[in-house]
Amino acid sequence: MDISAVNVLPYEDFVDIFGNVVEKCPLVSAAVWTRRPFVGLNDLVAAINQFIDALPETGKEGILRCHPDLAGRDLRRGALTQESREEQARAGVDALSSEEASRLARLNEEYKRRFGFPFVVCARAHDKASILRELSERCGNERAAERARGIEEVKKICRLRLQDLVLSDNKL
Amino acid sequence: MDISAVNVLPYEDFVDIFGNVVEKCPLVSAAVWTRRPFVGLNDLVAAINQFIDALPETGKEGILRCHPDLAGRDLRRGALTQESREEQARAGVDALSSEEASRLARLNEEYKRRFGFPFVVCARAHDKASILRELSERCGNERAAERARGIEEVKKICRLRLQDLVLSDNKL
Repeated sequence: MDISAVNVLPYEDFVDIFGNVVEKCPLVSAAVWTRRPFVGLNDLVAAINQFIDALPETGKEGILRCHPDLAGRDLRRGALTQESREEQARAGVDALSSEEASRLARLNEEYKRRFGFPFVVCARAHDKASILRELSERCGNERAAERARGIEEVKKICRLRLQDLVLSDNKL
Repeated sequence: MDISAVNVLPYEDFVDIFGNVVEKCPLVSAAVWTRRPFVGLNDLVAAINQFIDALPETGKEGILRCHPDLAGRDLRRGALTQESREEQARAGVDALSSEEASRLARLNEEYKRRFGFPFVVCARAHDKASILRELSERCGNERAAERARGIEEVKKICRLRLQDLVLSDNKL
């Protein structure tokens, strides 16, 4: 879809198509619909990022808490969103050895206990080894820094999901 | 569930249980989890209302756009959330005469064309006749007033959904 097609979408279709570019937060795309017309993909990305940045810190934590654990209970329940399922599968965390799985589960629990929100990482920029390494490192950070870091990862995930849906500006 | 049980929920369970008290906006309950412990139901309601009030106006419009039309395409597709399905059925809008259905559809379209968000009303406080009357009247309002009115309805819906889940303060 090119950006001119995006710009004429009624909000209902816009939210149907872009409602999960921020995981389980259709509120975000529904909010930025107000900002159309968008000049291009980058402009749509920027509108979403600005909306997220303008949220109170509790709202940013809220976005993080809408994300599933990597290889967590939503994967086991078959309750992942389609986007998350594909991203986790591509990074290989849906097929871990039992040793890897228990290490990841232990680190996820440690992270959530420490920060009160889940470890969020752009799985498409990683493989299972680098995910485990990064999770282990990030468990040692301060809470505010980790909240900001999680939100940066949300933005990376969002950009990639949007790139799957909208032609890049330089392809027009 | 009494409030002391609510206050010890991990965020994942909290969002599972309260994620749809604001329609399709788990971000909101996920955000207010930060504010626990809650003194009682009214305190939880107040935390949610304060979070909504602190959103930028685009965010409030985003919340409204996450709501389905009454007797609209989500009902026809069987895609309503359980809460919305029960609320629409209780108000009788899932069983309209063809004349009522076309009047409601025409007014919904007029409302959305005028305001860029759907008509939101607390269906549990209405029947189909009063819904049609209110929709017709509200089509004549100014946009800003209607956005604020829609958000007040969101808060009424939210309080009723919370009352279904948490014991009222005066029942403790």
